[in-house]
Amino acid sequence: MTSHTNRSNLSLPAQQMPPDAEFDATWAEEDDPHIHKLWAIHRTIHTLRGKMSKQQLDASDVMSDEFDENTSLPPTYIVIKIASDIKENTLTWLIDKIRGKRRDGGAELIVMRQPSDPDDGWILHLSASKIKFLETAEEMELMKEDKSGMMREFTVGQLEDFLPEGMHVDDLLTLAEKQTIVRHELENIRALAEDEHIPGYPTYTLYEGQSIFQVCLKYKIIMKVYPLHDQEALKKLGRKWYMSLLGKQPIEEIRLYFGEAIALYFTFLGFYTATLVVPVFVGLLQLMIYSETMSMFCVFNVVWVTLVLEIWKRKSNELAFKWGTISMTSLDEPRPNFRGSMGYDAITGKLQPQSPRYLTYLKMYCVSIPIVFLCLVAAFVMMLASFWLEEYFKQTRTSDDLIILLPSIVYSILVYIINCYYRKLATFLTEWENHRTQSQHDRHRVTKLVLFEFVNNFMSLFYIAFVVRDMEMLRSQLQTMLIIFQLISHVQEAVLPLAVKYYGSKFAAWKKQLFSSNGRSKSRFYKVPTEDQLVPVLRSLPQIPIDDYRLDSANKEGEMEDYEGTYDDYLELFIQFGYIFLFSPVYPVAAFWALFNNILEIRADAFKLCKIYQRPMSRRVKDIGAWQRCFEIIGAMSIMTNCGLLCLSPELKRSAPEVGPVEWVLFFVFLEHVLLGIRYLLHITISDKPEWVRVALAKKNYESKQALKFERSQKNKGLLRRKFKTIHGTHAR
Amino acid sequence: MTSHTNRSNLSLPAQQMPPDAEFDATWAEEDDPHIHKLWAIHRTIHTLRGKMSKQQLDASDVMSDEFDENTSLPPTYIVIKIASDIKENTLTWLIDKIRGKRRDGGAELIVMRQPSDPDDGWILHLSASKIKFLETAEEMELMKEDKSGMMREFTVGQLEDFLPEGMHVDDLLTLAEKQTIVRHELENIRALAEDEHIPGYPTYTLYEGQSIFQVCLKYKIIMKVYPLHDQEALKKLGRKWYMSLLGKQPIEEIRLYFGEAIALYFTFLGFYTATLVVPVFVGLLQLMIYSETMSMFCVFNVVWVTLVLEIWKRKSNELAFKWGTISMTSLDEPRPNFRGSMGYDAITGKLQPQSPRYLTYLKMYCVSIPIVFLCLVAAFVMMLASFWLEEYFKQTRTSDDLIILLPSIVYSILVYIINCYYRKLATFLTEWENHRTQSQHDRHRVTKLVLFEFVNNFMSLFYIAFVVRDMEMLRSQLQTMLIIFQLISHVQEAVLPLAVKYYGSKFAAWKKQLFSSNGRSKSRFYKVPTEDQLVPVLRSLPQIPIDDYRLDSANKEGEMEDYEGTYDDYLELFIQFGYIFLFSPVYPVAAFWALFNNILEIRADAFKLCKIYQRPMSRRVKDIGAWQRCFEIIGAMSIMTNCGLLCLSPELKRSAPEVGPVEWVLFFVFLEHVLLGIRYLLHITISDKPEWVRVALAKKNYESKQALKFERSQKNKGLLRRKFKTIHGTHAR
Repeated sequence: MTSHTNRSNLSLPAQQMPPDAEFDATWAEEDDPHIHKLWAIHRTIHTLRGKMSKQQLDASDVMSDEFDENTSLPPTYIVIKIASDIKENTLTWLIDKIRGKRRDGGAELIVMRQPSDPDDGWILHLSASKIKFLETAEEMELMKEDKSGMMREFTVGQLEDFLPEGMHVDDLLTLAEKQTIVRHELENIRALAEDEHIPGYPTYTLYEGQSIFQVCLKYKIIMKVYPLHDQEALKKLGRKWYMSLLGKQPIEEIRLYFGEAIALYFTFLGFYTATLVVPVFVGLLQLMIYSETMSMFCVFNVVWVTLVLEIWKRKSNELAFKWGTISMTSLDEPRPNFRGSMGYDAITGKLQPQSPRYLTYLKMYCVSIPIVFLCLVAAFVMMLASFWLEEYFKQTRTSDDLIILLPSIVYSILVYIINCYYRKLATFLTEWENHRTQSQHDRHRVTKLVLFEFVNNFMSLFYIAFVVRDMEMLRSQLQTMLIIFQLISHVQEAVLPLAVKYYGSKFAAWKKQLFSSNGRSKSRFYKVPTEDQLVPVLRSLPQIPIDDYRLDSANKEGEMEDYEGTYDDYLELFIQFGYIFLFSPVYPVAAFWALFNNILEIRADAFKLCKIYQRPMSRRVKDIGAWQRCFEIIGAMSIMTNCGLLCLSPELKRSAPEVGPVEWVLFFVFLEHVLLGIRYLLHITISDKPEWVRVALAKKNYESKQALKFERSQKNKGLLRRKFKTIHGTHAR
Repeated sequence: MTSHTNRSNLSLPAQQMPPDAEFDATWAEEDDPHIHKLWAIHRTIHTLRGKMSKQQLDASDVMSDEFDENTSLPPTYIVIKIASDIKENTLTWLIDKIRGKRRDGGAELIVMRQPSDPDDGWILHLSASKIKFLETAEEMELMKEDKSGMMREFTVGQLEDFLPEGMHVDDLLTLAEKQTIVRHELENIRALAEDEHIPGYPTYTLYEGQSIFQVCLKYKIIMKVYPLHDQEALKKLGRKWYMSLLGKQPIEEIRLYFGEAIALYFTFLGFYTATLVVPVFVGLLQLMIYSETMSMFCVFNVVWVTLVLEIWKRKSNELAFKWGTISMTSLDEPRPNFRGSMGYDAITGKLQPQSPRYLTYLKMYCVSIPIVFLCLVAAFVMMLASFWLEEYFKQTRTSDDLIILLPSIVYSILVYIINCYYRKLATFLTEWENHRTQSQHDRHRVTKLVLFEFVNNFMSLFYIAFVVRDMEMLRSQLQTMLIIFQLISHVQEAVLPLAVKYYGSKFAAWKKQLFSSNGRSKSRFYKVPTEDQLVPVLRSLPQIPIDDYRLDSANKEGEMEDYEGTYDDYLELFIQFGYIFLFSPVYPVAAFWALFNNILEIRADAFKLCKIYQRPMSRRVKDIGAWQRCFEIIGAMSIMTNCGLLCLSPELKRSAPEVGPVEWVLFFVFLEHVLLGIRYLLHITISDKPEWVRVALAKKNYESKQALKFERSQKNKGLLRRKFKTIHGTHAR
C-alpha cells in the first residue's frame, strides 16, 4: 500500500500514526503540530489522488517516495565531491547520514554515484523525493505566490492554493528552490551526542548540534559542493540578459535561476547605473557652460546621492516583499556554522543550537574591534610612509625617476598582499564571533572588510586633498585610480577568466590527446571491474549511467572557478561610488566614466555568472545588508569632503577676495550643516517602505493575530466540549 | 429567560441566532466572525454560570444586561454636560444615539440624568452593562495580563485565562479601562447616511461616518465631558505619590488610574531627572577643581545626552511591551475626528472612514509647512528687531534705563500673545491635514508647536552666542531665562491654580451664603415639579437620587480646569533640556538648578493632576512620540553649539596662543565631526529594544503566524470533510 511507504519517510515515531490511512477528522484536532502536519500531508495526498489525478498530475508519481530503480534516475540537484583518500568507515558514515532518516539525524536525501576515477575523488549526485521537497519547503517557510497573487508561506496542506490551473505539482518549486532545499537539508545534518568525532579521524572532533557538512568541508573530506547548471534554462536566460545589449534585465528570471541574493545585486547595479545618468548630465553641463557654478554642482550631487539611497531602500523593500523575504529577522534559523549547545529555541520551540548573544558582543567589542582598528592604523601608517618616502626621494633628487616611483609600487604590492591576509583574518574573526544568522555574519564580515578597503582606496586621496592640499595632484591621482581600478576589475572579472578558460581547454585537449588511448581505455576499463573494488556503501548506491549528460556537466562544472558571493561585486561599486562622489568638485567627469563602465559591467557580470563560474547556490536575502549603510556613510562623508574641497578651492576664493579665511571656513561649515540637515530631513520624510507594502504587511499581521485568537478559542472549545458532554450529546450531527 | 434578554443587546440580526441557547458546537465552525464572537460570549456565560458562580461571581449579575431599576443605579464612568438651550428633538436624537443598539448606529450605553437646574445645562451620567464592557474590551483589542503573566489581547472567549484565583470578573477591567471603553463607544457614534445634519440645526451638517460626539463638542451642544474621580483610589495613589517625598513613583498605579500617556510622562520625568545627577556632579567637580577642563566637560555632556536618549528608547519600548502598546501602528484605529467616506479598511476589513494618505501629505507639504516656516521667520525677525531696538536705544543713550528695557518687555508680551494664536493655528492646520491616528495627529501638532517654541526660547541665545559673541551676556541671559522660566512654570502650574481654588471656593461659599435659602429651596422645589416640564426623553431616563455622592462630584469636578494633555509638561522639560545642554560651557550649573527644579516638579505635577485638574481621560501611547525626536535633535544641536562655544571661548584661545584662527576653527569642526560620529555609532550599536522584548515579540509573531497556517488548514479541513462525507461517516464518534 502506497501510504505505508510514505509513512516510513516521515520523521515521526510509529506510535503517533493513526490506525488507518483513511480519513479521520478527530485526530487532527489534537494540538501536536507533528500530528497536524502529518495529517495535512496525508490529506493532500488523498485530495491529489481523488480529485486532481486526471488533470494535473500522475498521483502515483507524487506518492512514489523512494524512486523506482527500474525507471530513470531522479534529476541531480547538488553534486558533492569527496576526497579520494577518505577512509571506508568515514564514507559509510557520511553516506548513511545523507541518506538516513531524520529521526536518526539524517537528511533523507537520495544519493547516486558517478563512475569516475577514484584517484580524483568520489563524485556523488544528490536528489530528493518529491514528497521530501514539499515537506522541506513547508519547514523552511518558503514563500510562494498563491492563486490570488499573494506571497505566503507554502504549506503542503494548502498545496491546491499554490497550483494555478494547469500547473503540474512538479513545477511548483523552481530549480533554484529545489537546490536550496537539498543544500539546506545537507547543511542541517547535525552531529548527535554520540558523534564525538568524524569516524576514522579521531582528531576531527564534533560537538552535538554542529553541522557535519560544514566540518567535512573545513577538513576537506568533502572537497567541493555545487549545483549543476540547467543548460537549457541558462541559454534562455543568457539570451534575455547579457546577449540583449539594451533590454531590461530579466530580474525575475535571474531570481528563479540564481536566487534572491544575486537578483538583488543586479537590481541594485541596474538601479544605481540608471541614476548615474543625472550626475553625468549635470556634470557635463556644468563643465561646458559655466565653471563658476561648481558649488551648485556639489550641492546637487550630495542631495542626489541621499535621495537615490533613500529611494533604493524603498525599492529594495518592495522587492523583498514581492519575494517574500521581508520578514526575515535576526531571530531566524541559525546558519549552519553557528556553534552552541542544542536547546529549545525561545521563539519557535525548535531544537536548535543556542549560544548567548552577549558572548558574541564580548568577542566583538573586546577583540575584533581593537584588532581591526590596529590593522586600519597600520594601513594608514603604511600609506603615510609611502608618501613620505616619495617626498624624500623627490627632495633629495639624487636618484632617477624610477626610484621616485618605487615607494608607490612597493606600497601597491604590499597593499595587495596584506589585503589577502586581512581578508582571511576578517573571515576568521567573524566566524569566531559566532553570529547566529547568515545575514548578521555577512554584515559583520563586510563591515570589517570595507573599513580596510576604505583606508586603502581613499585615504591617500584624503591625504592629498586635506593635508597636501594640491588640487591638481588630487585630480590626476583620482583620474588614474578610477580608470586603472575599472580596467583592472574588468580584466580580473572577464578577460582573464575567459583567457584561462580558452587556453585551459586547449591545454586540456592537448593533454587528452597525449594520453588519449590510455585515458579513454582507462575510463572504460574502470567502469566494470571497480564494482568489486568499491566499498560496500558505494556499491549500494545507484550508479549514473555512463551516457548520462550529467556526467559531463558534473565533471566540467566541477573544474570551474567558485563564485564566492556578491561581496566583490558590491565592493567594486562601492569604491567606484566613493571615487565619483567623495571628490566630485575636482573631477566631475568621474560619473561619466562610471556610467560607461557600469553599462559594460552589467553584461560582464552576467556573462561571468552564466559561463565562467560554477553555478552559485541560491541564497535568500531581504536587502543588500551592510552595503546600504556603507553607501549611506559614503554619502554623508561626501557632504563633508565636498564642502571641504570647495572651501579649499582657489577659484571660489578668488571670486570673493574680500572674505577673510575664518569667515570662509565658517561659511562652508554652515553649508555642510545645512546639507547634513537636508539629508536628515530626507531620511525621516521618505518612508522606508512604499505605502502598499506597509498596508499588505499590516494586513498579514492583522490576519495572523486574528488567527491566533481564533486558535485559542478553538482550543477552549475543545476543552469545553468535553466538559459539557451531556449538553453536546443532545446535538450530535 | 435571561439568555433572551442578553440576545436583544447583541448587535446581531435575530436570524443569525442559534435556535436554542443550549450548547451547539456546530455553528461555531462557520467562518462568520460575528457568529464566532457571539458563540464565544455565549459560551462564556455558560461557563461562568455552570462553573464559577459560587467561587467568583454572581452569575445573574453578569448577565443582567439592562440594569434593574429596583436595585441601585450602575456606577458613573463619564459625565457629559449638555447645553441648556438644546432643542428638544436634538436632545432626543442625541440620547437615542447614546442608548441605541449598535445596528442603528448607537453606542449601547446606559444614560442617567442628574437633577439640576436646567439653566446650567443637562448633566448626564453614562455607564454600560457588564457584558458591554467585556464585549468592547475585546473589540478594542485591549491588552490584559493573563494568568501566566503575559500581556495579550483580551477576548471574552478566554475570560477564564485573565481571571487569577479569587479575582471577581468585575475587577478584571480597571476603572481607567472602563472609562476608556465608555469614551470610546461615545466617540464612535458615527453619523449614518440618513443623518445629514444635527436635528434642529440644519447648518450643522454631518457626513456619513463622522463622529457625532466630536461634532456636538465642536458646536458646544455637548459642553463638557469628563470622567469622575474615584476619591478612595485617588487618596491611596496620592499617599504613595506626591505625599511621599523620597519614594519611587508608583508608575503602575498611575497607569491604572490615569492611563498610559500620563504614566509614561512621569516615567520619563523620573528617568530624566535621575540621569541629571551625573552632569550635575561632573559640572560641580569641574567648577571646583580645574576650570581649564571645560572642553572635557562639554564632550562628556554631549556624549552623555546621546547615551541617555538611547537608553530611554529602550526603557520606553520595554514599558510599551509590558503595557501592551508596543504594536500600535499608524494603521490602527482612526481617531474620532478623522474625516473620510466610509469604506472597508484594507487591513482589517472593518467599515471605517477612509481618506487617501496623499491628500494629507499634499496639505502638509504645500500649505502647512510654508505657513509654519513663515511664522518661524516672523518670530525670528521679531526677535532681531527687539535686539536692534535695544542696541539702538543703548547707543543713542538719550533715554533712561526703562526705555532700554522696553523692547524686551514688548517682545516678551508679543511672544506670549502670538504664541496663543500660533497654538490655535497649529491645532487648526493639523486638524485640517486630517491625520488618521491620534498619535500621528499629536506628532505633527507637537512638531509644529515645538519649532515655534524653539525659535522663541533659544534663538535669542543663539544670536548672543554666535552673532554678538558676548559670553558674559550669554551667561547672564541664560541664567535669567532658566530661573525665570522655572519660577513662572511653577507659579502657573501649582501656586496659581491652588490660589484660584482656595479663593474660588471661598467666593463660591460666600455666594452660596448670599443666595442660600433661595438656592436650596430652588433645587428642592425643582426636583418634583420639573418632572412634567422635562422633555419625554429625559423623563424616560433614570434619575440619580439627590443624596447620591455622585451628584456632588459631578458638579464639583465639572467646575475644575481641563487638563489638556501632557504637551505643556513635556514642553517644559524640553526647554529646560535645551537650556542645560545647548550652552553648557558658559553655564555649567544649569543642570544643578534643573535637578532641583525637577524634584519639585514631580510632586507638583502629581498634585496638580490629582487635585487641581479635572480627571483626564486615559490614553494609550507606545512612546513619547515626537518628543523623542525633539530631544534627540537638541542633543545633536548641542554638539554643534558646544563646539562652537568652545571655539569662541577666550580661555581656550589664551591657553594656546600659537594656534592661528583658521586652525582653531578647523580643530573644532574636527572635534564636532568626531562627536557626531560617536553619536551615530551609539545610535546604531545600542539596539532600540532590549533583547528579551525582541524575543518575546518574535515569539508572539511566530505563534500568530503558526496559528494562521493552522486556521487555513482548518478551513481546508472543513471543505474536505464535506467532500469526503462517505469516508467521514464511517468514523462517527
